[in-house]
Amino acid sequence: MLELLSEQPCFRGVQRFYRHESSSVKGFMRFGAYLPPQASLRKVPVLFFLAGLTCNEETFAIKAGAQRYAAEHGIAIITPDTSPRGDSVADEPGAWDVGIGAGFYIDATLEPWSRHYRMYSYVLHELPDVIATHLPVNTSRMGVSGHSMGGHGALVLGLRNRHVFRSMSALAPIAAPSQCQWGKKAFGHYLGPSQETWSQYDASELLLNLNRRLDFPLLVDQGLNDPFLLEQLNPDALAMACAISGQPLELRRRTGYDHGYYFVSTFIGDHIAFHSRCLR
Amino acid sequence: MLELLSEQPCFRGVQRFYRHESSSVKGFMRFGAYLPPQASLRKVPVLFFLAGLTCNEETFAIKAGAQRYAAEHGIAIITPDTSPRGDSVADEPGAWDVGIGAGFYIDATLEPWSRHYRMYSYVLHELPDVIATHLPVNTSRMGVSGHSMGGHGALVLGLRNRHVFRSMSALAPIAAPSQCQWGKKAFGHYLGPSQETWSQYDASELLLNLNRRLDFPLLVDQGLNDPFLLEQLNPDALAMACAISGQPLELRRRTGYDHGYYFVSTFIGDHIAFHSRCLR
Repeated sequence: MLELLSEQPCFRGVQRFYRHESSSVKGFMRFGAYLPPQASLRKVPVLFFLAGLTCNEETFAIKAGAQRYAAEHGIAIITPDTSPRGDSVADEPGAWDVGIGAGFYIDATLEPWSRHYRMYSYVLHELPDVIATHLPVNTSRMGVSGHSMGGHGALVLGLRNRHVFRSMSALAPIAAPSQCQWGKKAFGHYLGPSQETWSQYDASELLLNLNRRLDFPLLVDQGLNDPFLLEQLNPDALAMACAISGQPLELRRRTGYDHGYYFVSTFIGDHIAFHSRCLR
Repeated sequence: MLELLSEQPCFRGVQRFYRHESSSVKGFMRFGAYLPPQASLRKVPVLFFLAGLTCNEETFAIKAGAQRYAAEHGIAIITPDTSPRGDSVADEPGAWDVGIGAGFYIDATLEPWSRHYRMYSYVLHELPDVIATHLPVNTSRMGVSGHSMGGHGALVLGLRNRHVFRSMSALAPIAAPSQCQWGKKAFGHYLGPSQETWSQYDASELLLNLNRRLDFPLLVDQGLNDPFLLEQLNPDALAMACAISGQPLELRRRTGYDHGYYFVSTFIGDHIAFHSRCLR
C-alpha cells in the first residue's frame, strides 16, 4: 500500500511524498515523486535521483530547484531516502558516514546490517515496481543520477543494470569507494573484508571491467573547490577506468564550485536535459 | 565591518552570507547576497527579498531556486534575516508569530521590543548603505519583494519609500495585517493599540491613501489552496484598496498552490523578470 503524505503543485506539475512498507528493507520507506505537467496526459520517463550522506527523500526536492527542468522536459523525478530508518534499524550512533542516512545503495551481507540495509535491491527492483503500479510513469525509460554517495549509487546501479537504467550521470560522486575512507568504512561494515564483493559496488572497478560501452557518454560534474575532492571522491580514478575501457566520459571540472547544493542546483539542469535526450 | 561567513559559486555568480553589527537593531545581523556573473563587470540592480515567519537569511537562498533567474537577468538578491537575534533580544518563548523570527519589518515603539525590533529602518536605511559600500550593486536601482510576512514588509517598505525601492511585488503577502490575527498580535506587541500607527504598516491602508499611482502595476501571486488565505492573507482587501485608489494590480490567483516554497519557487522567476524590467 502506498500512502500519500503530501502533495504540492510545483511548476504546473506536482511534488508528492509517499510512504510504503518495503519488503526489501523490511520497514517503512519514504520517497519523493515530482510529476511534470505532461504526466496528466501520458506516461512520462523517469529519473531516479539518489541523495548523499545525511540526506533524505526531501533534500533534493527542496534544495536542487530541479522541478523547473523536469517540467520543461516532461520527466518525472523519484527521490528515495538514503537508508532504512526506524527503531529496529541498526545504526552507529554519532556516525554520519555509516548507518542511518548512509545506506550507500548496497545490499549489506554482514550482521546486523544485512537485515534492513538493502538499498540496492530497493532502488533497483522494488521502487520501480511501486511507481510503475501507482504513478503515470514509463519504467521502460528510466535513468539514474545522484550526488556524492548518491552519485556512487547512481553509477553502480546504472553500470550493473543497463537494461533497467538507460541513462546515468553523477554530481561529485564517490567514484572509487574501495579506495577512500568513506567507502572503506561503509563497505567494511556492510560487506566485510571481501574485495571481490566491494568491487561490485565500485564504479571505477565496474568501468575497468566494462564489457560493452554505454550508448551515451558518462556525464559527471565535479566542483574543483570541493573539500572532499581528493580524499573521498577521486574522479581521476573514474577517468582512468573510462580511458582504459574506452568508455567516453564527459567529466566537467567546475572551477570554484564546492560540494553543496549551490553546486548541484547550478548544474542539475544540464543533467536533466542529458537524461531527457537519452530517454527520448 | 562586514564579515564574510561563506561564499559559494552558484550559476556562475556567487552566493554569499555576511554578518555585521547593526546600529539599527543594536546587534549582529546576518544577510545573504547573491551576486550574478554580471556583477564582476559592473554594478548591478538589486532585489531585496524579505522572508516569512520562522525563516532566516538562508531560507530563500536555499529553497527558492532564484539564483538561476537572477543570473539570467543580471540582478543581485539581498536576503535579510526576519528579526534581530541574540540573548539580549526580547522574545516570546514558544510563539512563532511574534518575537525572534517574526520582526514584521516594523520599528517597534513599545518596550521591551523597541530596543532591537527595528527591521523597518534596518532594511530601508542601513542594509542599502552596507551593500552600497561593500558590494558591486547600484542602489539607485533597487526593488523589493517578499513572501508572506515578507510580502507585507515588501509592500509597506515599497509603498512608503518609492524613491528608494523603484519596484515592488509580493508572494502570498499578509496584505491587510490590521485585520488579521497575525498582524493584530504582532502590531499589538510592537506598536501598542494606536490604529494610526498600525495603518503606516498596512499595505491595504497605504494603498487606500495612495497619492500617486506606482509607475508599474503591483504584482502579487497568491495560491488558492493556501491554508492562510482567508484568515491571514486577505488579498481581497488589497484588491479593493487598489480598485478604490486606481492603482493597477496584477493579482495572480494560482489554482491548487499553497503557501510554501514549492509555490514560491514556481513563480519567483516571473517576479525577478518583472523587477528586472522595472529596474532597467
